[in-house]
Amino acid sequence: MTTLRDIGVSALINILGTIFSLVGFMALSLQPMNDRVYKPKLYLKGVLRDSPSSTSRNNNNSHRYFETDFRQYLWSFSWVAAALRMPEENLIEHAGLDSVVYLRIYLLGLKVFVPMTIIGMVVLVTVNVGAGFLDDNATTQSTTSTNTNDTASSSNTTQLVFSGIDKLSISNIPDGSPRLWCHLIVSYIFTAWTCYMLYLEYRTITNMRRRFQDDDHRRPDQFTVLVQQVPRQFDESIHIQVDDYFKRNHPEYYLTHQLVYNANKLSKFVRKRERIRNWLAFSQLKLSREAMTPTTRPYCCGCCGGQVDAIQYYSSQIEELTQKAEAERLVILDDPKRTMAAAFVSFKSRWGAAVCAQTQQNSNPTVWLTQWAPEPRDINWKNLAIPYMQLTCRRVFVNIGVFLLVFFFLVPVALVQSLASLTGIQSTFPWLSKVLQQQFFASFIQGFLPGFILKLFTMVIPYLVTCFSAIEGHVSLSRLETTAATKFYYFVVINVFFGSILTGSAFSELQLFVGQSSLVGILKTLAVTIPMKASFFITYVMVDGWAGPAFEILRVIPLVSYHLLNSFFVKTEGDKIKAMSPGTISLSTSLPQLELYFLMGLVYSVITPLILPFIVIAFLIGFIVYRHQVINVYDAPYESAGGFWPHVHGHIIAALIIEHLTLIGLFLIQGPISFGVISSDTGTTLVGKILQYCKEALSSTPFMVALPIFTMIFHNQCKKRFEPAFKRIPLEMAVKKDLEDKAKEPRFSLAVFLRNAYKHPDFSDEIDNTPDVEATNKSPIIEDNLSEASNRISSTVSSKTVV
Amino acid sequence: MTTLRDIGVSALINILGTIFSLVGFMALSLQPMNDRVYKPKLYLKGVLRDSPSSTSRNNNNSHRYFETDFRQYLWSFSWVAAALRMPEENLIEHAGLDSVVYLRIYLLGLKVFVPMTIIGMVVLVTVNVGAGFLDDNATTQSTTSTNTNDTASSSNTTQLVFSGIDKLSISNIPDGSPRLWCHLIVSYIFTAWTCYMLYLEYRTITNMRRRFQDDDHRRPDQFTVLVQQVPRQFDESIHIQVDDYFKRNHPEYYLTHQLVYNANKLSKFVRKRERIRNWLAFSQLKLSREAMTPTTRPYCCGCCGGQVDAIQYYSSQIEELTQKAEAERLVILDDPKRTMAAAFVSFKSRWGAAVCAQTQQNSNPTVWLTQWAPEPRDINWKNLAIPYMQLTCRRVFVNIGVFLLVFFFLVPVALVQSLASLTGIQSTFPWLSKVLQQQFFASFIQGFLPGFILKLFTMVIPYLVTCFSAIEGHVSLSRLETTAATKFYYFVVINVFFGSILTGSAFSELQLFVGQSSLVGILKTLAVTIPMKASFFITYVMVDGWAGPAFEILRVIPLVSYHLLNSFFVKTEGDKIKAMSPGTISLSTSLPQLELYFLMGLVYSVITPLILPFIVIAFLIGFIVYRHQVINVYDAPYESAGGFWPHVHGHIIAALIIEHLTLIGLFLIQGPISFGVISSDTGTTLVGKILQYCKEALSSTPFMVALPIFTMIFHNQCKKRFEPAFKRIPLEMAVKKDLEDKAKEPRFSLAVFLRNAYKHPDFSDEIDNTPDVEATNKSPIIEDNLSEASNRISSTVSSKTVV
Repeated sequence: MTTLRDIGVSALINILGTIFSLVGFMALSLQPMNDRVYKPKLYLKGVLRDSPSSTSRNNNNSHRYFETDFRQYLWSFSWVAAALRMPEENLIEHAGLDSVVYLRIYLLGLKVFVPMTIIGMVVLVTVNVGAGFLDDNATTQSTTSTNTNDTASSSNTTQLVFSGIDKLSISNIPDGSPRLWCHLIVSYIFTAWTCYMLYLEYRTITNMRRRFQDDDHRRPDQFTVLVQQVPRQFDESIHIQVDDYFKRNHPEYYLTHQLVYNANKLSKFVRKRERIRNWLAFSQLKLSREAMTPTTRPYCCGCCGGQVDAIQYYSSQIEELTQKAEAERLVILDDPKRTMAAAFVSFKSRWGAAVCAQTQQNSNPTVWLTQWAPEPRDINWKNLAIPYMQLTCRRVFVNIGVFLLVFFFLVPVALVQSLASLTGIQSTFPWLSKVLQQQFFASFIQGFLPGFILKLFTMVIPYLVTCFSAIEGHVSLSRLETTAATKFYYFVVINVFFGSILTGSAFSELQLFVGQSSLVGILKTLAVTIPMKASFFITYVMVDGWAGPAFEILRVIPLVSYHLLNSFFVKTEGDKIKAMSPGTISLSTSLPQLELYFLMGLVYSVITPLILPFIVIAFLIGFIVYRHQVINVYDAPYESAGGFWPHVHGHIIAALIIEHLTLIGLFLIQGPISFGVISSDTGTTLVGKILQYCKEALSSTPFMVALPIFTMIFHNQCKKRFEPAFKRIPLEMAVKKDLEDKAKEPRFSLAVFLRNAYKHPDFSDEIDNTPDVEATNKSPIIEDNLSEASNRISSTVSSKTVV
Repeated sequence: MTTLRDIGVSALINILGTIFSLVGFMALSLQPMNDRVYKPKLYLKGVLRDSPSSTSRNNNNSHRYFETDFRQYLWSFSWVAAALRMPEENLIEHAGLDSVVYLRIYLLGLKVFVPMTIIGMVVLVTVNVGAGFLDDNATTQSTTSTNTNDTASSSNTTQLVFSGIDKLSISNIPDGSPRLWCHLIVSYIFTAWTCYMLYLEYRTITNMRRRFQDDDHRRPDQFTVLVQQVPRQFDESIHIQVDDYFKRNHPEYYLTHQLVYNANKLSKFVRKRERIRNWLAFSQLKLSREAMTPTTRPYCCGCCGGQVDAIQYYSSQIEELTQKAEAERLVILDDPKRTMAAAFVSFKSRWGAAVCAQTQQNSNPTVWLTQWAPEPRDINWKNLAIPYMQLTCRRVFVNIGVFLLVFFFLVPVALVQSLASLTGIQSTFPWLSKVLQQQFFASFIQGFLPGFILKLFTMVIPYLVTCFSAIEGHVSLSRLETTAATKFYYFVVINVFFGSILTGSAFSELQLFVGQSSLVGILKTLAVTIPMKASFFITYVMVDGWAGPAFEILRVIPLVSYHLLNSFFVKTEGDKIKAMSPGTISLSTSLPQLELYFLMGLVYSVITPLILPFIVIAFLIGFIVYRHQVINVYDAPYESAGGFWPHVHGHIIAALIIEHLTLIGLFLIQGPISFGVISSDTGTTLVGKILQYCKEALSSTPFMVALPIFTMIFHNQCKKRFEPAFKRIPLEMAVKKDLEDKAKEPRFSLAVFLRNAYKHPDFSDEIDNTPDVEATNKSPIIEDNLSEASNRISSTVSSKTVV
């Protein structure tokens, strides 16, 4: 259906879009007034800072903030070099290990697919084009060869017209041709290469994680264990219970514990006080600048009531709220019902914590559950005290929900896609048919629209899966995001990948798929339809993988919202930092998208290698863009030390196995492969006879069946070898660190260090939501790397007129 | 094919066989000379003992050892009462927890199937017989109803003649009959009942296990951890390495360790010395009795060479071997290559051991692997030091081997069974056809032979799967046996159960099954064939479950071998104990057989409830027989505290799910079930309309699909709730026991207690293979229970004339 021309149109649109976005980014990011949009991370890290005067409202003199030095525009591609220049170790320090591991997935994509592209384009395309099956077939009305096939496959093959790119694909090879041995061998090479790369990657990331955890800083989560499902007893408070239990069972290592309170009401007071503090700061600023007492109205958010002195009013409000919060705090501490059945238990040494986190405490395995405490920022406070039975029920319901979402989302997608197809639009809106008969519009609809619709539908799901994961009751945000990513991956594989393959052009396949076809039949159906959908996925990769990152780097929404906020609402420095909205890498959506590229690349690597260069470009653009973003923009909300990697690894392995199953289906259709020249030429010699015998005895399918088995074995080995590093902390490592600590600081008071580490964020007296810019140690190397940007900033700042 | 008459013949044969075996057992077991055959356990426990003179050869006056008191024969059924009388707690003390848990599986079978039998026979059989579909069908040549079915199923239904028992089964109900709602509801009741019973059982066994582990005895395995994969270093011995490692990583709890040596050569010496010691004892006995110096020849096992004084010769030989063994022992201790890369590490407290066994030690998860040490008797010494990579390879190969065994064993079974069918025999041996035309022989071949052939084939497999498990490298015998049982279960389910269903009468189904039928098609095929094979499985249950235990209790082989050995070879008391060969429950074969009864019972419970009474009787006979055997005969070689139960639970759950899948297939064939009377009568009212609507919207399949899902959820809950008790020891329990120990015996030296606990059995200086009869504490309660038997023994012994 889709021709090379359609792909060309789509490529043109996407390339234009990509270039437009990048040019836009380069132009906008050079303007100093956009620095807080395009380099918020540097502000948060304290590398960049405004001149003192710029904290005031300055929208009326924003023309001073345009870049006027045109030499800068000539150097506009320097951001690429800057993004790539920072070494990995510094990047870990600058942005955390999570971001680095995330970027390494792009690198892995390049490592896997660049050699594949070369082999695919050189070897496979040559072999495919040389076969010339489709040309012959088209002339002979495609009746002779398909008779030998399975009924379902042959009918499809003949019904659907082959497009230009199919001539470059495996479809161009006649059944049983000896050329297929080449594909078989290449599929082994590709699998082996992917596995080898995955192994190296897993090893590297494991080592990085170990090194990261083994670094010099003492962190509270190294000494602390989260205890859940403390059984409630009527006569004792949770406090005493926890204390007794751990004093008894870990007599020599137990240090202290912190209870978890239900502080929702307190949070309300604290947030309100925070808001008023902000207003107070604004009023004080106004006073200092305008030399006139600012006033406000006490009711309805400053709209009703008589005018009062703002500073005085806000101060009294803060006073009142502080008293209320203090009272609430006392109530919480007093009321045993507000104490949740969970606690953070800290130990005197890493060894003690490791032991407690990694063993079963109670003979009833549903109470006193221990696990490593997430780092304080990573805690999902709301989920800490869900009872065991409720947790189980929630998980069951979420699983059912995910199942329904994954398997019954097909229906609307298929509906909309069939509506948006050329024939669908023509039949729904007959008056449009004239427009549609123009080549360009037709190509637009065929090439661009299905991918775009898919993208739209896909955009709703992340919120849904995150919601599902939140309901599941994970105690850490990182775990929540990883499980949401896994759910989203299932969704993407079933709906985006298989859904597009089975519904887009051949909707009747769905019925065939669900209704009555056998296992083998399903594989065959896939094998027939997959080559035909290559052009669609090429379009998809261009929309999602080329234009997507380019649009991401442009940061349209933060740009607009920052300038809007800055013009009208920003009152204090804190507001300005809030208005920057640096954002984060949303792992729950980014990971499945990346994994989808792996899936497409692997499945099509042997079938239609033409897709590979598009994927390589997508990985390349993504790598550069996200490296830039990680350095300059994103602010990681927590650090899980690459804890999501095992999931990514598993999903890539799943992609490999889907590839193998597709190939099995393909070779099943193709029937036994002949040995070609060899067997017919040397039929009389002994070797020839043996080959003849082999030819009869062997089909290619058994060779293919071995591949998924090998892949599974490889996966299990990786799991055994590396996964423990993501789940447990070995005692040897704990002892080593304990001894080092002792030698370095023999008098360090751990109790003081841990005292408030796991306090509810709204529970401490002094709350400061603004990130502690001064306290963050800038590493000299980062400064070095960012020197160019900051130099430019300081020079432009110095040229500004102070208001 | 098989009629009720065939089953009758088979039942007759089996009942006769069973009765014959039981009568034989009762007659033989009353003879005092057979006491060592039928009550070896009591000898081993020291409850029974021979009079001193009987240790000599006494075959020439064996007539004195027959029971002559005919009142005893009248009481011959007392063994049943005696077997059932002993309370469970005493049985645990007498025979160990493993045996008790094993017996509880029979009890569970009774608990599950007795209510099912009642409901099945009362409700389902009535409903089935009342439908009368097959009668109608037979008269109308079975053409009308089958047209509506799937092609495959209808052709089978019509091809295969229905037998008498099918009228009692679900086959007798026409498609879509409202009577099927009854089966649907009953299947829910049965599943719920089975799950409830399983839950209670799992809870009970978990508690028993906890109590057993929590008892007063101090056991070496509570303090000891098995460390494997100690990385070899060139400059340090394993001894120093282990010591350093655990001193560093468990500084406060590490006590000592025992190395594992490669002592194969030493074992040879020790065994030889043992043999010669036996000869020496024999010679000394001869000397004391015949008052003449016994002689022997020094070469070729006492056949060549000149006559020498036997006692002198043997003594010198023993001396020599002792020296050799000692030298070898020194060599082993000296040569670092003979030390294996594993060790038993003991800790000062249960807490320390629990921590070490249940945590990861090294950051490389493939070295310094720790696990709870099995109890000393349970260790599989040979497998202690297999390198990690070799272990992995072994597992992969064994898995492939098991897969091949499980899935390709079908072929010979099918071949032999088709040969042994009536038509098969007639075509192979035409001269037999006259004999075969006689009703009795035909019934014999149809009813008895297939089951017997299956049994024969099944008998080879246990050795094979045990061999597979041994290769897998499990360090404990209990684990070896449990994994062998799991492998055997796979084998039994696929080959015995599905193999018989799909090949026995309809060999063509196999091709249909493997070749091209879909998932749904497979279910439908099963649903068609399963009801037809009910009679076959009834036969199988009778052969295997009725005659089997009766034959087991008869102990033909031990009886013959004991008397043969006793007549010709028994020289010393040690020999006599060896000749008793008490045997054990072979879990690797018994468990899968029991699980197969569960599978048959559950699958047929709704389809052909007639099978249930046969299974109940099998469980009853098995329970009585094995309880008797456990008390009087079997000697448990090790104690795993019911460690195999989770496997049994999982396999019964698997059986439940197979039941559900079969029922789904069945209801798929039957099509949507009508609501019968209700919908047609009340068609005009509102309720009637709603019902009408439901009737159209609903089919029975969704109801059935919920069942396996619920079962899986139930299984997961059981697993989470109870399985940890079989894998880990909670720290709370360890601390409690530690404190109790300390309070009781504050000065107990654990180091002395553990010193030789984990020495290689051939490594200690003084070897005594005879079980330590005196040392075993007889509990007064057991004695009480066994008083009857021992009284009788002592009375008969006292009446004997001393030789």
